Amino acid sequence: MLSLPSSSSPEAWFLRRILTAVGQPPIRLDLGSHAVSPPGASPIATVVIRNRVALLKMMLQPEVGFGDGYAKGDIAVEGDLVGFLEAVYRSWPAVSSRRLRQLAARWMQSLRANTLRRSRNNVHQHYDLNTDFYQRWLDAELVYTCAYFPSPEATLEEAQIAKMDLVCRKLQLQRGESVVEAGCGWGALALHMARHYGARVKAFNLSHEQIVYARQRARQEGLDSQVEFIEDDYRNISGHFDVFASVGMVEHVGLSRHAELGRVIHRSIGNSGRGLLHFIGRNSPQPFSGWMRKRIFPGAYAPALCEALEILQPGNFAVCDVENLRLHYAKTLEHWLARFERSAELVSAMYDAPFVRAWRLYLAGSLAAFRTGALQLFQITFAGSECRRLPWTRAHLYEAEERLRQPKWMQTMS
Amino acid sequence: MLSLPSSSSPEAWFLRRILTAVGQPPIRLDLGSHAVSPPGASPIATVVIRNRVALLKMMLQPEVGFGDGYAKGDIAVEGDLVGFLEAVYRSWPAVSSRRLRQLAARWMQSLRANTLRRSRNNVHQHYDLNTDFYQRWLDAELVYTCAYFPSPEATLEEAQIAKMDLVCRKLQLQRGESVVEAGCGWGALALHMARHYGARVKAFNLSHEQIVYARQRARQEGLDSQVEFIEDDYRNISGHFDVFASVGMVEHVGLSRHAELGRVIHRSIGNSGRGLLHFIGRNSPQPFSGWMRKRIFPGAYAPALCEALEILQPGNFAVCDVENLRLHYAKTLEHWLARFERSAELVSAMYDAPFVRAWRLYLAGSLAAFRTGALQLFQITFAGSECRRLPWTRAHLYEAEERLRQPKWMQTMS
Repeated sequence: MLSLPSSSSPEAWFLRRILTAVGQPPIRLDLGSHAVSPPGASPIATVVIRNRVALLKMMLQPEVGFGDGYAKGDIAVEGDLVGFLEAVYRSWPAVSSRRLRQLAARWMQSLRANTLRRSRNNVHQHYDLNTDFYQRWLDAELVYTCAYFPSPEATLEEAQIAKMDLVCRKLQLQRGESVVEAGCGWGALALHMARHYGARVKAFNLSHEQIVYARQRARQEGLDSQVEFIEDDYRNISGHFDVFASVGMVEHVGLSRHAELGRVIHRSIGNSGRGLLHFIGRNSPQPFSGWMRKRIFPGAYAPALCEALEILQPGNFAVCDVENLRLHYAKTLEHWLARFERSAELVSAMYDAPFVRAWRLYLAGSLAAFRTGALQLFQITFAGSECRRLPWTRAHLYEAEERLRQPKWMQTMS
Repeated sequence: MLSLPSSSSPEAWFLRRILTAVGQPPIRLDLGSHAVSPPGASPIATVVIRNRVALLKMMLQPEVGFGDGYAKGDIAVEGDLVGFLEAVYRSWPAVSSRRLRQLAARWMQSLRANTLRRSRNNVHQHYDLNTDFYQRWLDAELVYTCAYFPSPEATLEEAQIAKMDLVCRKLQLQRGESVVEAGCGWGALALHMARHYGARVKAFNLSHEQIVYARQRARQEGLDSQVEFIEDDYRNISGHFDVFASVGMVEHVGLSRHAELGRVIHRSIGNSGRGLLHFIGRNSPQPFSGWMRKRIFPGAYAPALCEALEILQPGNFAVCDVENLRLHYAKTLEHWLARFERSAELVSAMYDAPFVRAWRLYLAGSLAAFRTGALQLFQITFAGSECRRLPWTRAHLYEAEERLRQPKWMQTMS
């Protein structure tokens, strides 16, 4: 349905082409002089395109054009931003899957491998933002990965602690064991492992800001003899450990480096160790969002489960357990987005309005992607071929609902 | 160490070559005139090769030659059969993995696709043996797949019921829902779903003997209005269902038919359904045992997890949960082998001594493979892209240890 009479103008034709390219979701595109929406259902939201340059950029590169236009303020979304993005994600599969696969293939070819230097730059661009900025909308422990909500009503704080403890239980972590963590953020998981499980942890991270913060926390909590934070690339991990853990780093490794990561893991824990990979994934290979890759997470790629298994196959690791926590990431992002909105003015003063809009779009888009299943969250638990510490069943993870609601460390703390 | 002086004879050279080909496990090969064992550890068992024809066949095709020679009685194992097979499985990876991969590749190429007709013949060869034979060593419900032991002390009977119930819980089966089961054996799971969950089940199987038995049971239990047993290939499944389940059939589908199975599943449950695949798998692609494929399971292939995911990717199914039940299959096989040995004389009267020896080797070899991790057992739970019945966590599977020890139907039965 063209809502204005001048349907044969180039502008209207452009708008219709954009609508078709994203699979005709129930949204309205409004250029001021012209507006279009698909026939049938009433539009969820209106995308206001404020000038023709923004329209042209969206024509040429729909995703990047939209994202940049939105951040700049040349494009606005009137109505429910998350609902609008969900509608687009839902309509997307209606576009020929063959075309998508071709797109994916092209994307893969254009992937620039994450070399040591490029990885450092990529990490710097995202994670070396002021810690104060992340404190505005993350939980108190600054855990910047999918939380685990024992029940949907749990707070974000509870859910991040529950996630860290779930990871430790999946790893069957024992007092005195050694752990290497690849990609440790602000150090919350490494400190949790030391504090509640008596583990000795070496945690690697390329972000200078995060490592400085994590070291300070370790000292403050008297855990610096148990936890060592190392500002270095996962490829430079050396030494032998009982356990390998990586929460939210595989996405930054890149497909072409999966085998290399696998060699690092095998070198670190041999055939007798065990490990866990926690990462954003897909149902099947697909390109990562172009705009996100350009503006938010340079070098990122969310692998299909099958692609992630390429990390584990060469070392003959056995997959013990895979859990999909997609709904938990949607819930996590609801919390993050709500907290972010409450701090938007403050953030705007720290950076500027385009920064706030870009981050809003990133958080809302991620929420929509997890809600619709465009993105998945996988936790893979794996074991070396000679690992002796295999649980008989998974019942120990869920011993009682009460235990989940009131985890071990809470009981022992009182 | 060559235990006899005539180490330079052709026979000794042959024996040494065989020992090297399997990676020098701590076993003794004894040809009567000559014997060899690797230096170091004392041998777990002695393989007595009774004539030179058997030796030659083992030289040419180690696995098939050994298996056929053992069944025929030309080769005997003195000592612990399972322990001997475990030692061989353990030494196997020491053989160059590159060579293994080449072998695998060759094997793949030589895979004969399982056409409708070939599948029927394959199934007939194994599953149309007299039901009375299987009753000698399976559980009372005749479940011929990996059981689930809530604790290692559970009986086989308890563990098979626990497995069927675990499958139903993973599927979150609801009263009145429709299920299609691909490969239903003697019907135990379909009947369990109808009896305890009020499901309506269409169950497919190519084995005439099994279908006849299953139909009779359904009538006897008054479940024939809820459960329909259909003697047909999974490719001929038609209709729309809430749930797809397949326990122990993927291994018989063959790699080249994975995409076809995926299309059948998608046609059956669309984007809103959910399903479960339970199958014998591997850590990475490897050829299936040559002897087993030739003598026990024609057309069989145990896929790597990644290969099995090829079934689910084209339909955009999300993997919700993967559980590795390898240790449970080892325990299941311990029960089967012990019961089989107790009935060996009876079975020998039904068939003959070579049949008993072949089945002993098959059960002992499978036990060794699961114990050593040469084989894995995967249960994949998956959901369509529009599935609304996703559990919030997996805690419902393990609500309490007590619930696992005394499952729902036991409580309601009393």
